[in-house]
Amino acid sequence: MLEPIDLLLTNAAVVSMDETGSVFLDGAVAVRGREIVAVGPSAELAARYTPAEMIDCAGCAIIPGLINGHAHIPMSLLRGLVSDQQLDVWLFGYMFPVESRFVTPEFVYAGSRLSCAEMIRGGTTTFVDMYYFEEEVARAADESGMRAICGQSVMRLPTPDAPSFDVGLERARRFMQQWHGHDRVIPTIAPHAPYTCTDEIYREAAALCQEFGSPMTTHLSETAREVEESQAEREVTPIRYAKRVGAFDVPCIAAHCVHATQDDIRLLREQRVGVVPCPTSNLKLASGVAPIRQFIEEGLRAGLGTDGPASNDDQDMLTEVHLAALLPKGVSGDPTAVPARQALALATSSGAKAVHLDHLVGTLEPGKRADLVVIELGKLHSSPRYLYAPDAIYSHLVYGAKSADVRDTMVDGRWLMRERQLLTLDETEVIAEAQRIADTVNEFLSRRESNLLDKILAIGGVQQEELFEVQLKALLSPEDERRVLALLADPRITTLRSSQRTQYDTYFLWNDAEKGRVRIREDHRHDGAARVEPRYTITLTAPAQRGEYSDAVLLSRARYTAEADRTLRFYREYFQPDRVVEVEKQRRRWRVTYQGQEFAINLDTLARHPQSGPYLEIKSRTWSSRDARAKTELIGQLLDLLGIGEAALIKREYVEL
Amino acid sequence: MLEPIDLLLTNAAVVSMDETGSVFLDGAVAVRGREIVAVGPSAELAARYTPAEMIDCAGCAIIPGLINGHAHIPMSLLRGLVSDQQLDVWLFGYMFPVESRFVTPEFVYAGSRLSCAEMIRGGTTTFVDMYYFEEEVARAADESGMRAICGQSVMRLPTPDAPSFDVGLERARRFMQQWHGHDRVIPTIAPHAPYTCTDEIYREAAALCQEFGSPMTTHLSETAREVEESQAEREVTPIRYAKRVGAFDVPCIAAHCVHATQDDIRLLREQRVGVVPCPTSNLKLASGVAPIRQFIEEGLRAGLGTDGPASNDDQDMLTEVHLAALLPKGVSGDPTAVPARQALALATSSGAKAVHLDHLVGTLEPGKRADLVVIELGKLHSSPRYLYAPDAIYSHLVYGAKSADVRDTMVDGRWLMRERQLLTLDETEVIAEAQRIADTVNEFLSRRESNLLDKILAIGGVQQEELFEVQLKALLSPEDERRVLALLADPRITTLRSSQRTQYDTYFLWNDAEKGRVRIREDHRHDGAARVEPRYTITLTAPAQRGEYSDAVLLSRARYTAEADRTLRFYREYFQPDRVVEVEKQRRRWRVTYQGQEFAINLDTLARHPQSGPYLEIKSRTWSSRDARAKTELIGQLLDLLGIGEAALIKREYVEL
Repeated sequence: MLEPIDLLLTNAAVVSMDETGSVFLDGAVAVRGREIVAVGPSAELAARYTPAEMIDCAGCAIIPGLINGHAHIPMSLLRGLVSDQQLDVWLFGYMFPVESRFVTPEFVYAGSRLSCAEMIRGGTTTFVDMYYFEEEVARAADESGMRAICGQSVMRLPTPDAPSFDVGLERARRFMQQWHGHDRVIPTIAPHAPYTCTDEIYREAAALCQEFGSPMTTHLSETAREVEESQAEREVTPIRYAKRVGAFDVPCIAAHCVHATQDDIRLLREQRVGVVPCPTSNLKLASGVAPIRQFIEEGLRAGLGTDGPASNDDQDMLTEVHLAALLPKGVSGDPTAVPARQALALATSSGAKAVHLDHLVGTLEPGKRADLVVIELGKLHSSPRYLYAPDAIYSHLVYGAKSADVRDTMVDGRWLMRERQLLTLDETEVIAEAQRIADTVNEFLSRRESNLLDKILAIGGVQQEELFEVQLKALLSPEDERRVLALLADPRITTLRSSQRTQYDTYFLWNDAEKGRVRIREDHRHDGAARVEPRYTITLTAPAQRGEYSDAVLLSRARYTAEADRTLRFYREYFQPDRVVEVEKQRRRWRVTYQGQEFAINLDTLARHPQSGPYLEIKSRTWSSRDARAKTELIGQLLDLLGIGEAALIKREYVEL
Repeated sequence: MLEPIDLLLTNAAVVSMDETGSVFLDGAVAVRGREIVAVGPSAELAARYTPAEMIDCAGCAIIPGLINGHAHIPMSLLRGLVSDQQLDVWLFGYMFPVESRFVTPEFVYAGSRLSCAEMIRGGTTTFVDMYYFEEEVARAADESGMRAICGQSVMRLPTPDAPSFDVGLERARRFMQQWHGHDRVIPTIAPHAPYTCTDEIYREAAALCQEFGSPMTTHLSETAREVEESQAEREVTPIRYAKRVGAFDVPCIAAHCVHATQDDIRLLREQRVGVVPCPTSNLKLASGVAPIRQFIEEGLRAGLGTDGPASNDDQDMLTEVHLAALLPKGVSGDPTAVPARQALALATSSGAKAVHLDHLVGTLEPGKRADLVVIELGKLHSSPRYLYAPDAIYSHLVYGAKSADVRDTMVDGRWLMRERQLLTLDETEVIAEAQRIADTVNEFLSRRESNLLDKILAIGGVQQEELFEVQLKALLSPEDERRVLALLADPRITTLRSSQRTQYDTYFLWNDAEKGRVRIREDHRHDGAARVEPRYTITLTAPAQRGEYSDAVLLSRARYTAEADRTLRFYREYFQPDRVVEVEKQRRRWRVTYQGQEFAINLDTLARHPQSGPYLEIKSRTWSSRDARAKTELIGQLLDLLGIGEAALIKREYVEL
């Protein structure tokens, strides 16, 4: 009497990834309900079972469903937004401004559906996520049939879904209550990283995970700088810190660990922490290459992840497996490092341990959930096949197979893709919806990129102080200079205050002068007392309207100034000017009143310039055309008092000289 | 009056890769005959030309055909044969034995067709090859419609197509004569590498290239060890050496250059040498990461290659482009290293310079050959698209596109693939033929892997000296030992010679004892004179047939011995034994005759062993069963002379004690 089952997959190379490395070159997998009931030679299983359905997998391999141990799946909507930037430009110039403006539940749901579709197509059956509005990620995972650990991200900074971290913690609790007990989707909390979290966030997160029996996920030791800063500020590595604040008191999934020290690695093993390097992302963001070989050799629960598609840019676990096999060889000089079978384990058997789901998935064994992938072999790029060596199938899969070779994907005994047709998601609709949302982001960025004002506002901190400034400039002879100094002592003029300073100005200029101009100023004020800290400001100047007034007067219509709290390099890479010009000057400055109006009088000497000066500048702020005209009039009178002739007047700014 | 053309490709994102970086987001390419006549906005070109055929490329990008600057395309037949091995095991244990036995014109043609099909599918239109029977590569390239530089490989070692290098040079000349003047297929000569070539080979090769106007291709500075050895032996780097022997007197294509020094890089630039790193292969063989960023910044003619599919394992140029963008970031810590546009250039505009074909291909510009690729965008893994930044299309292609997204491939104005259908090759037949040949290799390897004799013969140098050896062993008391020494002075025994030595034996054992046993011996002979060099031998012993003779006598049926000219590590990785046992012994040895027969008498003391001995061994070689029986008889007599009882006899070998 044959035993009835739901499904028999036959005639495949079945790669079980079990402890002993069982491979059945003409193998079969028997499935009943959501479970695997048997794995073995095709003939043997055909003789043992009566399947309701039998699927011929000749020419294919069957492997455990791939496990993506770290992702931010909604960010697929930001894929290709910007690349090849320094981390700060990428994060503060693009990701944060865009996320704070666009990340809504709708965005998260649409991005998650796009990513689930992509992952199913590439053979990923389980993913671990960390993002905002995580309930929408959970919904997309549930509907698409995937298995997921969904981590509601919490940090001390304001996020799109929580203005403060206590709101974030409360959100996380509600999310975990709501999704607790779901069979495939495990809700949890994801403290973002030691450098963005407080002790309290980690402790509360650990308590929540304890309460709901969920694993915690967090970023640890992604960059060398993060480790250095942690050492400097907390006197421990981020990994030691995580232990201290209770993150390892619950099953923990630690993303990246690129810069784990020897001591960290021991700790991670002792604490049974899952480590999840993300090879593509770690390369693209220049974080480095994780010590994957060491993780494996020291017996850690080692997995692999794609990270978010804004830094990858795909969610292709076969690519990560490929890199996990290649990179350790390339950086160590040892071609036997991380052989194919170990690399594949990172996304299957070992990967399941890394995400603490090895009791359910990661291998093809009786009693495990039927999470599996059918991959076509024998394509042009993966032909011919060598069978003489038992391990050849691993080489074939790791070095040969591509995500496009995945034919079928099953989770929990349910097909999510059959014969390359997605069964739980409408691919066309998912792509269209993703593009619709991306178009709104694209429009915002188009405006911003073509408009310096939008671009400067996007990075925050700028005073929206639209103002007019009238300005007169003259190149002085030594005699002119003496007369200016004499005038400042004249009773018709009241000096409010004076100062002396060195100003280093870097101008960003565009070939299209209508765009405006950005100036980054480093201002050293010499007040004779203790040396003061330089002050940094960034100023956007809209194009001056010339010729409206007296020939000699320049009018700047709008200026936006903010503290420049990032590096010059950041601004240069963020604004991408066509030209950069530096101007250094010594400035003597007087704030004066004349005829009841306030003026600034500057005597400037340019460094390293053929016409070093001194230059006179008379400036005044103004708020209306009429006022501007009145001040232009008064500036004319001052010029007369000084006896400076038309010939000395200069209609250009220093940067234009 | 509209100008007639053959083909207009419209509505695509046309990425020209020209000097100024022209991109037409709604662009078109006009083709007449084998040339591009115009590239520009769709509307503009539609208004200017009457095309015989118009193809809508909406949702796609059109890019220049990809250029694979270094390959050994026939090796696709060896893809997946063996992986994750040290270079020597890979090369001497697998590649060379298999190549010397299987590489024939038929093999080369079949492998080349498989590779051409794969390359066309992945958007490669030009490749540079180096292999044996290169005329068969040329034939496959010609028939498949690809553009190629085919280099007949020459080295000082015997090759599958030339027993000596002068035959190789002659072959190269004939090949170049035969194919000279072909429009797409450029025949040339490929001196393998400085470490496998003589000065004469390089000089002759340069002369041939001069004569036929072909570029030369060779391997340079692939590994750190190669550079060290070149410095030690020739006092110059391999790149300097190549210059010295005339390789740069003609346009040269230098594969790898992973370990190019600062001086090398200057030289490569001055000499206009094309440099072609192969990122995947360089990682997989643990050669390292080439200084790609520096190549670009210093203005070298930099390209990219796949290398042979035995070390890659695919021929997917989009993967190489992806790695060329990622690796320099990861190893330098600078995420702005090699931005997407530069990475794509390595396989197009700059790649064309690297292979000295930039007058013909590499960009989409009027007058260039119509070598182009249509890639579908907007797949799940490459959605959504961002258009706000002009460079976004490069990110999209480099970080998003996969070879499976290539829809159409054209070379010289002729479609080689349209709508994913190969037009010049029968894919099914190509794969079947590849598998048929691979099956014969597979059978050879299956036999070899299961049979130690085949395996030891495959690496060469072994004497096929099948012989029988009768052997008696006894554990001696001090009194026994004295009696043995006394017997050696007995006139019935003639001592031919004696010696004293230390032998370090490493045994490779298998759980299935029927497989036999391999011994690697390091033999230090102490002759009282100057210290002699240790001698290394490898011996395969087939299973002994026991009990056929006197109980005390062991019979080894077959032994194969050779000089062990590789490292112990090599043999261990090549043979992959189940167990490794080491035996160290002091051996006093006498060659004697007794009753006209020759025997060896050994007195051995084992180091680090609970029963250190001394042990007596009496051995004699034999060639027939009858002779064996006669010698067993004589050994019995010797035992009687010594008065050694049955109890002292030992039926096991040292390794089994």
